[in-house]
Parts: sequence; structure tokens; C-alpha cells
Amino acid sequence: MKYRRRKRLSAEEYAEGIIKGDRIILSRAITLIESKLDDDILLAEEVLEKILPHTGNSLRVGITGVPGVGKSTFIESFGKHITSQEKKLAVLTIDPSSQISGGSILGDKTRMEELSNDPLAYVRPSAAGSALGGVNYKTRETMLLCEAAGFDVILIETVGVGQSETTVKGMVDFFLLLMLAGAGDELQGIKRGIMEMADAIAITKVDGDNVRRGQLARAEYQNALHLFPPSETGWSPKVMTCSSVDKEGLDDILDNIMKFEKDMKTKGYFQSNRQQQNLHWMHETIESYLKRSFYNNSAVSEKIDSLENGVIQNKVPALTGARKLIDIYKNTKN
Amino acid sequence: MKYRRRKRLSAEEYAEGIIKGDRIILSRAITLIESKLDDDILLAEEVLEKILPHTGNSLRVGITGVPGVGKSTFIESFGKHITSQEKKLAVLTIDPSSQISGGSILGDKTRMEELSNDPLAYVRPSAAGSALGGVNYKTRETMLLCEAAGFDVILIETVGVGQSETTVKGMVDFFLLLMLAGAGDELQGIKRGIMEMADAIAITKVDGDNVRRGQLARAEYQNALHLFPPSETGWSPKVMTCSSVDKEGLDDILDNIMKFEKDMKTKGYFQSNRQQQNLHWMHETIESYLKRSFYNNSAVSEKIDSLENGVIQNKVPALTGARKLIDIYKNTKN
Repeated sequence: MKYRRRKRLSAEEYAEGIIKGDRIILSRAITLIESKLDDDILLAEEVLEKILPHTGNSLRVGITGVPGVGKSTFIESFGKHITSQEKKLAVLTIDPSSQISGGSILGDKTRMEELSNDPLAYVRPSAAGSALGGVNYKTRETMLLCEAAGFDVILIETVGVGQSETTVKGMVDFFLLLMLAGAGDELQGIKRGIMEMADAIAITKVDGDNVRRGQLARAEYQNALHLFPPSETGWSPKVMTCSSVDKEGLDDILDNIMKFEKDMKTKGYFQSNRQQQNLHWMHETIESYLKRSFYNNSAVSEKIDSLENGVIQNKVPALTGARKLIDIYKNTKN
Repeated sequence: MKYRRRKRLSAEEYAEGIIKGDRIILSRAITLIESKLDDDILLAEEVLEKILPHTGNSLRVGITGVPGVGKSTFIESFGKHITSQEKKLAVLTIDPSSQISGGSILGDKTRMEELSNDPLAYVRPSAAGSALGGVNYKTRETMLLCEAAGFDVILIETVGVGQSETTVKGMVDFFLLLMLAGAGDELQGIKRGIMEMADAIAITKVDGDNVRRGQLARAEYQNALHLFPPSETGWSPKVMTCSSVDKEGLDDILDNIMKFEKDMKTKGYFQSNRQQQNLHWMHETIESYLKRSFYNNSAVSEKIDSLENGVIQNKVPALTGARKLIDIYKNTKN
């Protein structure tokens, strides 16, 4: 079999290319970051260390909402609005289907055709993976690479039905929740707790026949948010309406995000939040390593099903199940 | 030094005593469960295994609310209402002060004097400990012992300001949130996300001058809850008002809990929720063991501060910090 072998770049070459804004090298670096080969992992770490001083200058925005809320269309219109202000934009999207199909990543690019062809925009879809409930487990590092490449705004899209929101909330400065008008069945898909994580809510598809319903929903949600305990930063999430078709309300949303950035920077919460996120990410990484090491242990795997069954059926105390597995693990690790 | 040495009971004796409802043996068993001595841990496990077939028959209710909401007074009145219906009641309270003071557990008993003297009630305060954000790390096992001792209802009180709610939510059938009328400053203390965990909300101190305000708050909260995504069980949390002083509304709350139990049992969610909780508890126990083993490792402890600082200051990538600590851990564990 013949294949073209690409020359392997050094960490230095990757870092230089990224910092110059070379998109081909950026894309290759992201692929490197996502790799699970030992050699790649070490090289990726070196690249990260080199670009780290060039990170931290973009605004990181997470966007979530259930399927059907119009996420891609929103990101396309909102993204164009951002680039129309001469801001460079990177969009990291998670392809929800890829977990099942094993990866038709092209889908995403076609979903956001206009944005993909915008010279100020960079759209990078990634397979969802199962590690962190749908978020690619290297999304955070991908974001750092984009930052070093000089993008002003980074949008990270999540699916809005899994645990990925918590993960994304933990890596962005601003978390935007997209909702549909009407508090009925459409809400079924949204996980509890997500509303309280939002820094703003945008009600989508508020156009045509839907305008009045959208305004009502806006008022209702705004009311509901007042009942939530206030955030320690003093930020009050605003509910806005928008239409991706009519390009309405997009400026309000961007203004709100900019106001948030300014407020939080003045109060010092912007930086302290990022510091806490960094620290948290280190510990998350450690803890997921520990769990992998435990649950992938072959002696543990062998016993876990029967102990789990015993615990589920209330025949084995949870503590005993845990202690037995821990003993097995301790006796077999090298 | 002279001290009276109590004869150590066998697992069999403990189990028999508990199942017979002997409160002295129950109390000693709880102390055994809370012990951190290796011998006690193994004996405690044996006791748990023996009583396990006798557990599962009580209704487990978590009660939370910020300090000042009137938790003890509520539990006292509500508890008396429960025992007045000839139901046997166990109350497990967490003493919030004991984390600081190192244990003045007596405080709790005096807080609920009437209930403590009720022959149908058993009040067991425990030091909060730091393990799980204020919940004693053996609260779940203590609950099982009480269940085997034949209590019909078990109330578990949490402080409402830490992470303990998630832990308690994970061990009870029904989670009751106590709130004060007025959505202002009183809310500051409640952690975000707790409202969405509640199976019901009770607004306390709705008496005297406060009645109208309480009624208004009830309507407001009920409205707000409608905007939350519905739970998959189909249960809609109700907002109720009550007065511990006037003994008003306590029957409504108990009725609501009983209705919940009936509904969930009919739909099968009651059992499946408990099975998932059991399983989850086994994994929680494993994961907290893994973390303790990692962070208590002396070589890890030695390096962690400087790596954490590097990560906070954005000088070390979080991944690198994690990888370095993991390497240290792998190289030093035996």
C-alpha cells in the first residue's frame, strides 16, 4: 500500500507555525493533540509548553442547546456578525453523530458553509468521543492552540444533552444557552442544572409567527432567573431573543458578552476564573487517569460485573464491593 | 489511668441487636461504622453484610436549607407529626459547627429536645467531617443500620451550603428544600443547582406577619419550577408553606412525600433509583480511595504546590502538570 508520509515537524516548528497563524500547521497540531500515541503525546506537550505564553488573549464562549434549537444556524449567523467586526473567530464544534458513526466529521463543515469560507473564521469539528460526555477530551488544548494562533473569539459548541456542558463551562469565560420559545416539550431534552450555569440565554428562531411567543418566553425566563441565587461575581444573566434568519438580536448578544468581559476584568473575576479552571483541569486530568488505570485493570474488570450486580441487588454492601475491588487492584498493580 | 472497657461485640451480636431494635447496640454500631481503625472497618463490613437483607424498608428523606431557615425547628415539628402517626422515625443530623470545633455533638440533641425524648424517635447527630463537603462519610451506612433497626422514616439533614446536598441527594428517596419567603438576600447562601434537585420546596416560618409574603413566595417559586426541565420520572415538585410554630402545613408536606413514594413505586422509579444509588456509592467509594491514595502520596505532596502554582500562573500546561504528578506517583507506589 502506498501512502504519502508527511514530514514530522518539531515542537519548535509547530509552535512557530501556530504563532504565525499558519492554519495548515494549526490543523496538524490539533490532530497531534488529539492523538493517543505515546510519541505524539509527548510532542504535543512540548508544543503546548511553547505556545502557552501566547495564550490567554481570546474570549472563550461556550454555546449549548438541545438539537433542534438551531445551534449551527445560530453559530453561522453569530459568527458572521463577529467577523464583520474584523474579529478573528475560531469555532470548535462537536459532532454529535460521530460518537455513533465513528466520525463523519465533514458534516459539520457543510453545516457552516458560509463561515467555513470566511477568511477571518476557522471552523474545526471534532469527533465527540466518549471520554467526557461528548466533549472531545482535548477540546481544551485545541482551544489553547487556537488562542496562540491569534483568534480573538473562540466559540465552543456542545450538544446540550449530556455532561459536556459542565466540562465546557469549565473551560470558557462565558456560557450561552440557546432555548426555544415555549416552556413545553421542547425543554425535555435539556439537562437539569444547565439553566443555572448560563451567563445568558438567547431564545432562537424569534421571527415570523414566532415573535410574540418569543417575547413572552423572554419575559418568563427573565423572571425565573431572578429567583435563582445570584452568582458571587454579581453578574445577572440576561435573556435575549434573536433570529438567525433575520439577523436580529445578534448584536445584543455580542454586546452582552463584551459587557461581561469588561465587568469581570474590572472586578478581577475574569482572571481568577481562568486560574481556577487551569487548576481544576490539572486535577480532572489526574482523576481521569486514576479511574482509567483502575477500571482498565484486567483483574478488576474480571470481578466488577458480579460485584456490581451484587450491589445493585442489595446483596453486597456498596462499601464491601468497593473494598474488594480496591484489594484486587492493590494486589495486581505493578 | 482507669477506664471501663466495653466488651467488644461480634458481628452477629451487633446484627441481632440492631434487628431487634436495641438502641444501645444501634448507637454502638454507628460508632463502629464511623471508626477509622482497620479492625473496626472489617467488623463494620461484616455487620453491614448481615443487616443488609433487613434494609430497604424505610422512606429516606433528605432535608436541606441555609442556616437561619429554621431547619432544626422544622425537623422537630415535622418529626413529631410523623411520630404522631405511629411511625418510627430516625433523624440523622449533621452538626455544622463540629467541623470547626472538632465535635460538640451534644448541641444537636439539645436542639431537638422534644424529638429526642420521643420514644418513637431516634436522633443521631454526627460530626460533619470534611470528607464529602460536610456529610459524614459514613452517613449512608448509618442510614442502613437505622433501616435494619426498623425505622419507618429516616430524615437526613444537611447544611445547604456545601457539596453535601449532592451526596445526600444520592442516598435519599425524596429531597426536601426549605426556603424562606422573599427571594432577596436570604438566597445568597443557597448553592446554585440545589433548587433543581428538590422534589419539593417548603417555605418555612409562614406565620404571623409573614403569611402574605409566604404565600406570594409560594406562587413565585411554583411558577419558576414550571420553567425547569421536567424530571424523567414525571414528578412535578410542589412548593408548600408551613409554620413549625403553628404546626401548619406539616401534613401537606408529609402527604406530598407519601404521594411521591406511591407514584414512584407504581412507576418503578423508586427501586431503580435505589439500585443506581447503590452502584453509584460503590464507585464513589472507589474513586475517593484512589484520590486519597494519590494525594496522600508523599512524593506527590512534595511536588504538588509548585506544579499547582505553575498551572495557576499559566506557566505550566495543565496536562503537563498532571502528567508529571502521575509519573511521580507511578514511580513511588509500591
